[in-house]
This record gives sequence, structure tokens and C-alpha cells, in this order.
Amino acid sequence: MSVIHPVILCGGSGTRLWPVSRKAVPKPFLPLVSEETLFQQAVRRVAGDGGFAPPMVVAGAAHADLIMAQWGDTPGARLVIEPAAKNTAPAIALAAALLPEDAVMLVCPSDHHIADTDAFRAAAYAAAALAREDYLVSFGIAADRPETGYGYLRRGEPLPGGYAIREFVEKPDLARAEAYLASGEYSWNGGIFAFRAGHLLAELAAHRPEMARLVAEAVAGGSTEGACFHPAPGPFAAIDGDSIDYAVMENTARAAMVPADMGWSDIGNWAALADALAGEADGAGNVARGAADLAGCSGVFAMTDGPRISAVGLSDICIIVANGEVLVTTRDGAQAVGKLPGALNQ
Amino acid sequence: MSVIHPVILCGGSGTRLWPVSRKAVPKPFLPLVSEETLFQQAVRRVAGDGGFAPPMVVAGAAHADLIMAQWGDTPGARLVIEPAAKNTAPAIALAAALLPEDAVMLVCPSDHHIADTDAFRAAAYAAAALAREDYLVSFGIAADRPETGYGYLRRGEPLPGGYAIREFVEKPDLARAEAYLASGEYSWNGGIFAFRAGHLLAELAAHRPEMARLVAEAVAGGSTEGACFHPAPGPFAAIDGDSIDYAVMENTARAAMVPADMGWSDIGNWAALADALAGEADGAGNVARGAADLAGCSGVFAMTDGPRISAVGLSDICIIVANGEVLVTTRDGAQAVGKLPGALNQ
Repeated sequence: MSVIHPVILCGGSGTRLWPVSRKAVPKPFLPLVSEETLFQQAVRRVAGDGGFAPPMVVAGAAHADLIMAQWGDTPGARLVIEPAAKNTAPAIALAAALLPEDAVMLVCPSDHHIADTDAFRAAAYAAAALAREDYLVSFGIAADRPETGYGYLRRGEPLPGGYAIREFVEKPDLARAEAYLASGEYSWNGGIFAFRAGHLLAELAAHRPEMARLVAEAVAGGSTEGACFHPAPGPFAAIDGDSIDYAVMENTARAAMVPADMGWSDIGNWAALADALAGEADGAGNVARGAADLAGCSGVFAMTDGPRISAVGLSDICIIVANGEVLVTTRDGAQAVGKLPGALNQ
Repeated sequence: MSVIHPVILCGGSGTRLWPVSRKAVPKPFLPLVSEETLFQQAVRRVAGDGGFAPPMVVAGAAHADLIMAQWGDTPGARLVIEPAAKNTAPAIALAAALLPEDAVMLVCPSDHHIADTDAFRAAAYAAAALAREDYLVSFGIAADRPETGYGYLRRGEPLPGGYAIREFVEKPDLARAEAYLASGEYSWNGGIFAFRAGHLLAELAAHRPEMARLVAEAVAGGSTEGACFHPAPGPFAAIDGDSIDYAVMENTARAAMVPADMGWSDIGNWAALADALAGEADGAGNVARGAADLAGCSGVFAMTDGPRISAVGLSDICIIVANGEVLVTTRDGAQAVGKLPGALNQ
């Protein structure tokens, strides 16, 4: 069995984790859940197992130095530097064009947390097996709450190790999310994919021919410099960017999913990070990172890079002190942190 | 009519306003409500009116420099430096012993806020008139809520400009506080007093003879140095300290009160300061001092000495950033701030 080629995407600004996450050092490159950064965890998740080739990372030039510093001793790792941010479809197509036609690529975001590496790998092997049969495979993340912030995948007929995708569903309202959860037919669309590289490019050419043409031009006119590949900026800049879901997954006749119950979180906001760290909570459900005195508090998440946090009587509040900024938000308010002046005007 | 002699007490540690208030610069010496400090407001409240003599300030040595810097151009102001903190009765007795026997003294805490200076002065003149008749007079602060953090005064028979005090009540529980408020017979005991100096000393000698004797010794053995008077430390240190309420007011047959409705607050905690600043609130009841972005918040008090505060979705929360510390508390929790490790271990 041939190896799986990990493709790690480092796009996204992650302003909802401001003031820790900033433009210069965004979310993937921060040690949020453990002492390793989310990017380092993504790299390690596909290392030390004979089933995976060295990773190919796709990122903007601004983060190239961070990436090469953080991947450390990862022999054979490559970095594809996007000349512009064009969403996931062009980023994935770049990687596909640089891989052998029959390579199975496993596309992973770099800013998610996955607690159960074994479950992740098992799902990856199942997805790769379907990808070799020219399915375009999405991980269907086991939903454990009626989340309204994610897209959902609805299962269709069974396939070996997975299911056909019967329907892609946009972020639902709460009533529909609750119905999805109750039905057991729906999973979250977590943005993790497996494709045969040549097949992905063929599907892209069918559904987004102009994008496929410009990616091919950018690769043909690109240049290699050590571990880095620089696509030609002209054609890449001309691409009308789109997500892989919109550009390909929702248009193909061969969309499939593998179920994945692996302690996944997109760490999409401070409340999500608090949940991912619930194992560290005290008896009242408080989680503290750094110096914090929490008196009469419950469900508080307190994180500081220096100044002490003192809190009294709070419930379900996140307090973040970082980079000279102080953020205090309810769990519900955490979704809106990216719209604060501090997060917007960096 | 002879003038009133203001005696301004600067005791108390004010740890409930930590981290702004600290041992080195406690509450009276901070510009909490306006650009003036509470102490400066206390001095100005009894200045510029021919009815008041220059103030006599009683304080510990640690704050002597702050006091003399903050009283600025106040001709004739004197500072009595307590050799030790012994609560209010010895502090007031020191001042009484330094004043002429027939002087009417007006004892004022230095860490309260009074919005209506005219009402304060009117109450002071009424209290002074009763004090000249050898009543021991307490200001009865108009109660506007069932506060459980204060002592109460119950009105007795009418006197000219005031009432005899029928009963002193310790901090009540909520049910009793609500009954007091409904009855209209009760006022808050705000710690503002008027006495004829010689009468106060005579009453102290009757009810706390040892304390009176030691205060007299400390004054007799004391020394003057410019505007400062230093009581003899030996006798003063031997005093068994007590409050003026316990030592004298609750024991005398001549306790009286004058009603005072003057926008009073003891600024006893962060919620009280927020209330005192309610006039500055935005449409949602938020008050901000310093850089603060409050999104979807109501009833939030945010105060910072530098770092920006960003908040989302909070209700009735106080956020204080000062001196490298970050405090977040509910309004109810504000009473407990003084027990936080940061406030205790300064």
C-alpha cells in the first residue's frame, strides 16, 4: 500500500483568538492546548508512522520562517508559499499539482486540535482507501452538540469504511442543528479531506476550469528554493478564490465521508479552547493558564502571559491577558471577539 | 457664631479597591470619582466658606508626605500623626485634645464621596448647633436601598435640626434592612460626627477612662514640628483601640443625629464606585475609565491605567486593570476583593 501524503494548510487569520493570536503569529503557531503549537501537533500527527510521507505545508510568505522553525527535524518536509490568500481550493490544488498523479493526499488544517491521534490515523487510512477508488473524501466529525457554527454532512449509502455524502448542509439554525444531532445521520464537516491528486485536479478542471488552468500555470512557472516552492505569482493572483467545498465537494458525484470520532475541536474561539482544556479544570470547572486567583468562580477560563488575573464570583467567563491587552468575554460572546476593535485594527 | 473645626481622618487600608488602592497609596489619595482625590475633595468640602477653620488631619506616618502634597495651599492646615493605628476613638480624641475645649469639631472620613456639598454643609451647621448644646451628633445618611454593609441609626424624639438617636443597629440582614428602609425611621451611620471637643473628651473619660488617660498623656508628651504634631508613641501604643461608636456614641445619653441627604457613598468597593460614577454611564449603563471597548455589555464598569480592556456580552461586571494586575468581579463579588491574595499580600 502506498503512503499517504499529508498536506497541511496554514491559512486563516484566527482573529477570534485575539489578543493571543495576532496577524504576525496567528493561531496555528501558538501553544494553545499543549506545549506544542497546533501546527506542531498537526505535523506530529502524521509523523512517526510508516504510513505517511513527509508533509507538504501550504502557507503565505509571512509565516514561512515560523513554519520552518516549528517543523524542526522533519526530513523531506516541503513548504508551498501561496503568493496570495485564495481560500482552500487553490491551496489544495497547488499541492495536488506538485504530487504524483496517483498520490493520495490527506488535507489537514493546521489550527485544529485532535485529542485521539489513533482515531485520526484510522480515519485517515479509511479515507485514503476510498480516495484510491477515486472518491473525494471528507472526514465526518462525530457531532456531540447542536453546533450552529459548522457545516454538516449527511450520510448516504454505505461504502467500504465510510458513506457516500447525501447532502452538504450550511451552518444550520439551532432547531435544525438539534434535529441533525437527534437523527444520527449528520456529522460536522471538519475540513479534513483525502483525494487522489490526479483525480482532485480532474474534478477541479471539470467544475472550476479557470481555477484549474491558473493553478497549473502557477505551478509550471514556479520555482523551487530548498524546501520551498514558489508558484508564479501572476497566474495565482488572477484566481477567483473559493473553498474546496464550494469549488469541488458540492459538485462532484463522488463525494464520500469517513466517520471520525477523535476528540476534534477547531479551537474556533476562547470558549472552544476552554472546552478542549476541560481535562485541566478544577472542581468548579475553572481552567487557568498562568497566574490566576479565582474566588467563587465556576466555568471560568483564565489565561495570562504575565499579569496576575484575580476574579470573584464569575460564571462561564473567559479572561485573556496577552500582549498588553485584556479581554473579558462570556462564552456566548466569544464568537464576536474577532469583531472587536483590538482584533480588527492590528 | 464660632467656626467649625474640621477633623479629617485618614485611617483604613481600603483593600476592597485593590488593585488601584494599595498600602502605599490607599483609597483617600486616589482620584477615584473626579480628577481630585477623595482626600482633596474632603479638604475642599470644608474650605472657601467662612464657617470652617483650617482642617486638622489625623493619619499614619506612612501617608504624611502624600497628605501634605495633596492638601496644597490650605493655610493653617495641621497634621496629627498617629504613632499606631488604633481605630477612630483615639484618633478623634487626639484631635479633640489639641483643640480648644469649646471648639466644635466636625469629624469626616477622608475616603467617602459626597456629591452635594451644599447639603453636606447644611447638615454640618445643624450638627454643630446641636454639638454646642453638648449633644454627640452623628450624620444620619439618607438610605436609598436595603444596604446590609452599614450600621443604621434609628430616630428618636425631635431636636432642633435633628433627632435624638433611639437605637444604634449593627449591619442588618437583608430582611431587616428592607424593613428599616420601608419604615423611614432609619438612616445609615456614615461615620461623620460633630462634637464639642471638651464634651467629647469628658464622655470618653466617662466610658473609656484608660483610653482618655493615655490620649491625654500622648498629647502632653507630644511634639510639634511645623504643621505636624507627633503624639508620644509610648502611651498611644498602649491604647486598646476602638471605634468612636463603640467607645462613646453607643454609651452616651446625649447621642443625636442630623439627617443628611447629600449623594453620599463610602466608595466601599468597585460596585459602589461604579454607582458613584453612574452619571457618566452610556445608554447601556456601562462606565469606562481609560481605554475600553465594550461590545454587547450592560452595567459594566471598566477602569484601566493603561492596557486596553475589551469586553463582550458581560452584564454587571467590574473590570479593573491597574499596577500590573487584572481584577474581574461581579457586583456582588466586589465585597470580597479585599480577601484576594493580591489584596492581602501587598
